[in-house]
Amino acid sequence: MGNLNNFASCISINTAHPLPVYRQIYLRLKEAIIAGNLKPGERLPSMRVLASDLGLARGTVENAYAMLIGEGYLESHGQSGTRVSSHLSSSHTLPVIANSLPVTEKEPSMPHVSDFSHQPLQLGLPALDEFPLTLWNRLAGKHIRQFPRTNLAQPPAAGYRPLREAIARYLQISRGITCQPRQIFICGGYGSVLRLILDTLYRHGDKVWLEDPCYLTARKIFTHVGAQIVPIDIDNEGMQVEQAIQRQSDARFALVTPAHHSPTGVTLSLPRRLALLKWATDNQSWIIEDDYDGEFRYQGRPQPALKSLDATGRVLYAGTFSKVLFPALRTAYLAVPESQIEQFEQRVCISPCASQVQIQATIADFIDQSHFYRHLKNMRTLYARRRGFLIQAISENLSHLKHLKIETHFGGMHLILHLESHVDDRQITALARSHGLAVEALSEWCIDNHRLTGLLLGFTNISSLAHAKQQINKLSKLIQA
Amino acid sequence: MGNLNNFASCISINTAHPLPVYRQIYLRLKEAIIAGNLKPGERLPSMRVLASDLGLARGTVENAYAMLIGEGYLESHGQSGTRVSSHLSSSHTLPVIANSLPVTEKEPSMPHVSDFSHQPLQLGLPALDEFPLTLWNRLAGKHIRQFPRTNLAQPPAAGYRPLREAIARYLQISRGITCQPRQIFICGGYGSVLRLILDTLYRHGDKVWLEDPCYLTARKIFTHVGAQIVPIDIDNEGMQVEQAIQRQSDARFALVTPAHHSPTGVTLSLPRRLALLKWATDNQSWIIEDDYDGEFRYQGRPQPALKSLDATGRVLYAGTFSKVLFPALRTAYLAVPESQIEQFEQRVCISPCASQVQIQATIADFIDQSHFYRHLKNMRTLYARRRGFLIQAISENLSHLKHLKIETHFGGMHLILHLESHVDDRQITALARSHGLAVEALSEWCIDNHRLTGLLLGFTNISSLAHAKQQINKLSKLIQA
Repeated sequence: MGNLNNFASCISINTAHPLPVYRQIYLRLKEAIIAGNLKPGERLPSMRVLASDLGLARGTVENAYAMLIGEGYLESHGQSGTRVSSHLSSSHTLPVIANSLPVTEKEPSMPHVSDFSHQPLQLGLPALDEFPLTLWNRLAGKHIRQFPRTNLAQPPAAGYRPLREAIARYLQISRGITCQPRQIFICGGYGSVLRLILDTLYRHGDKVWLEDPCYLTARKIFTHVGAQIVPIDIDNEGMQVEQAIQRQSDARFALVTPAHHSPTGVTLSLPRRLALLKWATDNQSWIIEDDYDGEFRYQGRPQPALKSLDATGRVLYAGTFSKVLFPALRTAYLAVPESQIEQFEQRVCISPCASQVQIQATIADFIDQSHFYRHLKNMRTLYARRRGFLIQAISENLSHLKHLKIETHFGGMHLILHLESHVDDRQITALARSHGLAVEALSEWCIDNHRLTGLLLGFTNISSLAHAKQQINKLSKLIQA
Repeated sequence: MGNLNNFASCISINTAHPLPVYRQIYLRLKEAIIAGNLKPGERLPSMRVLASDLGLARGTVENAYAMLIGEGYLESHGQSGTRVSSHLSSSHTLPVIANSLPVTEKEPSMPHVSDFSHQPLQLGLPALDEFPLTLWNRLAGKHIRQFPRTNLAQPPAAGYRPLREAIARYLQISRGITCQPRQIFICGGYGSVLRLILDTLYRHGDKVWLEDPCYLTARKIFTHVGAQIVPIDIDNEGMQVEQAIQRQSDARFALVTPAHHSPTGVTLSLPRRLALLKWATDNQSWIIEDDYDGEFRYQGRPQPALKSLDATGRVLYAGTFSKVLFPALRTAYLAVPESQIEQFEQRVCISPCASQVQIQATIADFIDQSHFYRHLKNMRTLYARRRGFLIQAISENLSHLKHLKIETHFGGMHLILHLESHVDDRQITALARSHGLAVEALSEWCIDNHRLTGLLLGFTNISSLAHAKQQINKLSKLIQA
């Protein structure tokens, strides 16, 4: 890499790839610096020369260099050109994941979001190979062809009525929730649901109980509005509600994932659910139930939602089609207590539903024509099997590693490999990711809880036992390295 | 209906109908209850019996009954069976308008947003009758059919790349703006664009210049984040920039509609544009350019965008497909200065683009295959003609009303009838709306400016001179009343 003439040939650019070229250059250089192939102080070709060598516009290279300078990987020495920073901190040599935020003390780092691609063991994806795409496209195509001219005008701010009705029926049948269609608001994804809740109910200075660890995006959304975050530990019954009440009984929100805690998979026990509801009723606080994967339970039937016990109207129930159908739908929904309908109706006039009507209509058909229930059943069976593949592969390949402990719960879409507390899960994760395994580090999901360390492995897209063994084999070598 | 034996024969079910059978039962029963054919307290057949009579599965009838119980039309009396509720409230017997808003005191009243329908003279709608729907559906259908399995996964947070590229080309050609695709971020509507800007750049306590009068939703969005709003008067050159600098030179944002001021239609003059840009450069402030209808100019060519003069990178350019294509697309975009790309890229990871990829792909095709330019040209011609119809109808029907003055500028999608300051435009508007004319009151768009009073009339969906005369005739009678 020290040879400037060969430099350009070492940066492989694929102009047909969806990732912008400047970004590919940025990633290749960053990886090289982190891997130590480009050494501190080493001089890079000038932007003009590199652009010329790669047959690109100077601005493209300039953009990549600028980003790396901004992140501290490169230093600009004016006329002397650009060099790898002499003083790379540990945060620069630990791999930083693309699209992640520079690691600062204030911001938690983001999980990797690939544009369209998905990598082995990636979290948060349903089984893309098994989605009934032909059926889906048939239903969707019908709504495109039959798109009436009147539907060109302003769509309903709260969402397409037939979908709200279909969801109300689904929630009744499958999640034990009784609510009216008018309690249901369609949003453009889970983040939009949280923002709708905060836009409508949040008041400056409100405190929120968050499970620790918890889903990063949720934490960032609360941080962004200035909420005071109160991290609450998880034990084998889920969020420690009594501890939360002692620490901060006047919190105004509690955000929970009761079916399968995200990311540890623990189910919130019934006593905890009742304690949580009692607290919310006594304090007139709000419980936000994130039920993103409640359907995927492999022992026994899926549990009723927490909201099914919500006699006093304190639970805001957030569901999404991202995991039960597919992420590109960008469609989620919120079921609010009856007392809050009017407030939310007013709010959505300012921030109307961004989900396309034809898409909503297609989802409504998918539910009403019972494909949805059949699909969920098929996925439960499939995921149980794929989970089995991964567990078996791990048992065979990684059992010799004493510090490893597989965590499996009754449901969810990923497994956790707990590591001993002295092991740095971020380092292993970075290494795994640079080798194309999209695992995540448990510690990155933690707020205060610094003792937890482990790897999160998605199993939904593992096609066979052999496939699982291949991934785990690869992972095994990296862990031992 | 009291005879249980005949009950089943009164519920007409069409198993070949696309509407699910349980839903047909639900609707038939609900209609009967609302119409008073089934009386409060009246007993219905048991689910088992009715299912048997109709030759259906018990679950089908159970579903229908469950929905009606959930909505309060029926009551379950255990062993005694199911009865029509004894206490039907007026909400069960009066038809409820789906998705309508109750009016409260705190919120400035919102313009009426009809679900899908559009009413005569309604603002903010393109000509729905003339949109090339067949062509559109053909393009859209292709993207549905060719939807690759890989596109099921997480879509690009900043928007679909080919659309960002198509927009960059369009902006260059039609709006005089030079920018890279990576400067463009796709959002789920104009409100989302404003929120993205505020999420990324707003700091607590920032002040913003708003045109007075201005688009209500924009004002609400700024109010919601706690920004200090500084209303600036409009004259015949647009926003009074010198006045603004004197009043609040340290404002951090200025939101302007330079092509055709919303709602008065005045174009921001070149000296004012330059003064605004100079101020923003000197103060490192941000100008948000809302160019929602810049294409629709009827005398001379559409003006280049303000951003075409943005040498120092201070303008955030907001465009939308709502008016130039149709509102149900819920797709808009933001072109940011190059210096801000990274910040916005980080932000969209938290709040990714909610616009569906297939929709974005269809828009990209529409632009790239030149249908878009042809459509804009057709609409310019059409709107000029329809505007003419309305102006003529007003001149003929309302000229006797001395206090009326038609305001026409070179472009835009509506006309203003200025009224004398003692006339209450809100009263006239309320009267007109209750008679099905969707006019709006100018004073409702005002922040501080209480002298302005007038009616805003949309002309884009007026199909003929006769149609225009009919609407104006109706309006004329109401004004004189």
